[in-house]
Amino acid sequence: MKKLFDKHWKTRIYKIIYHSDTPAGKLFDLVLLVVILTSILLVMLESVNTIDAKYHSFLNIAEWIITILFTIEYILRVITNSSPKKYVFSFYGVIDLLSTIPKYLSFFLVGSHSLVALRALRLMRIFRILKLARFMGESNNFLKALRASRVKIAVFVSFVVIICVILGTVMYLIEGDQGSGFTSIPRSVYWAIVTLTTVGYGDIAPVTPLGQFLASVIMIIGYGIIAVPTGIVTAEFASQKKVEVKEEEQVIIETKTCKECLTSDVRSEAKYCYVCGAEIV
Amino acid sequence: MKKLFDKHWKTRIYKIIYHSDTPAGKLFDLVLLVVILTSILLVMLESVNTIDAKYHSFLNIAEWIITILFTIEYILRVITNSSPKKYVFSFYGVIDLLSTIPKYLSFFLVGSHSLVALRALRLMRIFRILKLARFMGESNNFLKALRASRVKIAVFVSFVVIICVILGTVMYLIEGDQGSGFTSIPRSVYWAIVTLTTVGYGDIAPVTPLGQFLASVIMIIGYGIIAVPTGIVTAEFASQKKVEVKEEEQVIIETKTCKECLTSDVRSEAKYCYVCGAEIV
Amino acid sequence: MKKLFDKHWKTRIYKIIYHSDTPAGKLFDLVLLVVILTSILLVMLESVNTIDAKYHSFLNIAEWIITILFTIEYILRVITNSSPKKYVFSFYGVIDLLSTIPKYLSFFLVGSHSLVALRALRLMRIFRILKLARFMGESNNFLKALRASRVKIAVFVSFVVIICVILGTVMYLIEGDQGSGFTSIPRSVYWAIVTLTTVGYGDIAPVTPLGQFLASVIMIIGYGIIAVPTGIVTAEFASQKKVEVKEEEQVIIETKTCKECLTSDVRSEAKYCYVCGAEIV
Amino acid sequence: MKKLFDKHWKTRIYKIIYHSDTPAGKLFDLVLLVVILTSILLVMLESVNTIDAKYHSFLNIAEWIITILFTIEYILRVITNSSPKKYVFSFYGVIDLLSTIPKYLSFFLVGSHSLVALRALRLMRIFRILKLARFMGESNNFLKALRASRVKIAVFVSFVVIICVILGTVMYLIEGDQGSGFTSIPRSVYWAIVTLTTVGYGDIAPVTPLGQFLASVIMIIGYGIIAVPTGIVTAEFASQKKVEVKEEEQVIIETKTCKECLTSDVRSEAKYCYVCGAEIV
Repeated sequence: MKKLFDKHWKTRIYKIIYHSDTPAGKLFDLVLLVVILTSILLVMLESVNTIDAKYHSFLNIAEWIITILFTIEYILRVITNSSPKKYVFSFYGVIDLLSTIPKYLSFFLVGSHSLVALRALRLMRIFRILKLARFMGESNNFLKALRASRVKIAVFVSFVVIICVILGTVMYLIEGDQGSGFTSIPRSVYWAIVTLTTVGYGDIAPVTPLGQFLASVIMIIGYGIIAVPTGIVTAEFASQKKVEVKEEEQVIIETKTCKECLTSDVRSEAKYCYVCGAEIV
Repeated sequence: MKKLFDKHWKTRIYKIIYHSDTPAGKLFDLVLLVVILTSILLVMLESVNTIDAKYHSFLNIAEWIITILFTIEYILRVITNSSPKKYVFSFYGVIDLLSTIPKYLSFFLVGSHSLVALRALRLMRIFRILKLARFMGESNNFLKALRASRVKIAVFVSFVVIICVILGTVMYLIEGDQGSGFTSIPRSVYWAIVTLTTVGYGDIAPVTPLGQFLASVIMIIGYGIIAVPTGIVTAEFASQKKVEVKEEEQVIIETKTCKECLTSDVRSEAKYCYVCGAEIV
Repeated sequence: MKKLFDKHWKTRIYKIIYHSDTPAGKLFDLVLLVVILTSILLVMLESVNTIDAKYHSFLNIAEWIITILFTIEYILRVITNSSPKKYVFSFYGVIDLLSTIPKYLSFFLVGSHSLVALRALRLMRIFRILKLARFMGESNNFLKALRASRVKIAVFVSFVVIICVILGTVMYLIEGDQGSGFTSIPRSVYWAIVTLTTVGYGDIAPVTPLGQFLASVIMIIGYGIIAVPTGIVTAEFASQKKVEVKEEEQVIIETKTCKECLTSDVRSEAKYCYVCGAEIV
Repeated sequence: MKKLFDKHWKTRIYKIIYHSDTPAGKLFDLVLLVVILTSILLVMLESVNTIDAKYHSFLNIAEWIITILFTIEYILRVITNSSPKKYVFSFYGVIDLLSTIPKYLSFFLVGSHSLVALRALRLMRIFRILKLARFMGESNNFLKALRASRVKIAVFVSFVVIICVILGTVMYLIEGDQGSGFTSIPRSVYWAIVTLTTVGYGDIAPVTPLGQFLASVIMIIGYGIIAVPTGIVTAEFASQKKVEVKEEEQVIIETKTCKECLTSDVRSEAKYCYVCGAEIV
């Protein structure tokens, strides 16, 4: 403990929180993972009326403990970082803040307590902790495949949305006065998306022969064009697969986070950040 | 302005409206895009009863402004074109007309106003403005893949429709008198399409054991044969992918439209239309 | 006409009915296609109560005309064939008979009339007339791919059914007494199939937390294993695709039917059947 | 019979029960298959109230016969095996026990009878008897492909679950008080899974515009990312396919089970187990 709080204590704690290549860093990641999962579980249980009625005070105390833990973590992340602003306004910085504030707000604002559920967003940190994206491709190839098809997928989604707007509008003209739920164009567009993606809730469903005919056309379109994203991704995968066979790439599990630009996948053996060139401590 | 209205003004305006390789042409495309999206938004908002009740007069005025803008655009497209007939009877020409007429008709015919929603069809012009199809393939390869599998996909769709007609008819014989919604063969065929494409609204669902057994068979068929269009498209994609690697193709973003045959993807550096050979102005 | 009814008239009519390489044969196929589609349309319209009430006598007469045409075709197919038994007991022979009998039966048996709908099965002849399967692959490669994955697909379907039986049974134990529709094991298995294939009617849906948890597991399994048939078929397609590039195969549109074994895709220039070796007339 | 019960009777019966390369072994497998399928059918029929009311005593007797047959089989499997403990605590050993006990328990415990349905788990033995996994790949390649994509699929499933937890929580905040079924976070997460996997029961469906907008986003995500597992599996299949072409592998249908480690796919010509090295009798 003494050693931890000498003049280099900030750097030491920084390494524990942001890096994962020391025993202490790994332990921190593991504990954080467990606390996040516990907090999600608590929020879930609290939202179930029958459970909340029975164990309200227990759940409340447990939530306060987790809120305080998250607050300490947040403060440490801010003060040990050499550029706190960057962290505070980064994606994860905002989420980390959002997962502590609602509990404090519940003192002043009645009803704000339910926003504690925003804590679920911290689940995304699991991706960073477990470096899931890395496992996914077992190398960078998977991400490369997705990045290569990015434009195509975006265009495909626009295409789907435009089709849904057009067909939803036409359905509104056909079914609008039939009392079958097509009460406005946005609702009809919602229905078209529900149908084209083959989800099909059935809360809105056509009743006129013409409406059912058009619905059938939308379904068959949706059933057919699902092949397009699959084709895009598969072709990319297959071509990445071939590259994979040729070049052997090392899987890096231990990483550091750059203090300057917050890049989190710096190799543990790196001396300088590969993005901004800052020295890695 | 003076220069715009000299004796060559038709050619000048033609270039602005139909081409996209001058600053003015690009600006026109952008404004058109914004106006189309605004018009869709207006039509959508108007269809929501609660919003229409509140802002009826504002929405009405905004719609008149857009109708007049669309009318001016339509007239300019007709008079600047050297072959107006071709434009008027072309796919986009009909849609452009359909998006202005209903508003004028609403003076004379009560109820025709809701046809303003046909304006949603103008969304398709987005494909032309953004040249989405081009982005999709990042070259012509994507379209080539789709065109190559065109016949196969058409046959697959016929196959699906025939299966649905047969199975729908059999379900009508089984479930017709059970009050479970299979009241006629067309409705049963509609149900078969809903089931085979895995949409599954649940507005019509079998209740007899035999009906549920046959429904299970249809579902498993639908679950299995979705692999067929995927397989077709993916195999084409993969084989196009290989071609893509070999030949490098230039992505052309700026295009002109031929005055004679209305081909819209003439290269901006072209002097003559590659389809009809007409001189490009 | 005279020439048609000389001593070789059977062979002549056989050629017209079973082959498609003469103008008369092609015309016969076209007429048959139109009559089949008309008969399906009639059966459909008749099943809609409002239409049947209005046009009952017209529909009835039209159906009798078609029934008589089908009967004449059936008789000609039988008597011109050198081995009538084979035709009568073949797949298409049975369907051809089933599409004429119900109408005659409706004289004696009240209620048997609705079986006229079995005529929809004649739609399958469209596959033979249009040689759709041929177009599908534009060569035999598509069918080869399907045949090559036949065993794998059968095993996959068995696998899906076994999973559904097991999970349906477990759901019956969990949700059986909750009044949520899981009233018997067969119904629960039906529900499991509806869920696994991502159809999801919602006529039966779990209400207990444990049931909803298990349902989620089934959904994610179903969402994941849809990749398996797709993977199988696509891999086959892709490998057939490569073969396709190497060997050029001629598309044969005109075919004859062997009189002995009823094989229908005998090349029009063939002198002997490639299946049974019989002489082609 | 005499020969069967000499001093080597245990080995003889072991060979019949565990191996499938003798006529007696094959017959045993076939009979077992039929008895398992019959037992499933009985359990199913019994769960249907109308059938159980009519044939209760018949079904009860038939179930006792099967329970006794399963008990004899279980005892023989235990006593003929040289390491009974391994069998008793193996996966199939536990299932075999679970499919006999509930019937005996029904003497003492009222209500335990419905657990007889656990017998459905014995269906899994079909995989072993028919060696389905083997057919699936027609060699080990299919399993290799699945094993190779194991990690990727697990990560993909985690990814889907995390997205569903986050989006379900957000939907609970939006729709929680609207009476549309989002009564707690676990239920909302269940809904998110139902939607993302495109099942779409419709028992819970958003009613607010914001909720429907977010639902549309979830659907389009679900519709898009279904391409990911498909891409992974297909790429693996395709690369296995190529390997398959190069190396010819023999399909082994007849197998033995090792007495020591219970490995069931020992080649019938093997003298020693390829896993533990024990001699195969």
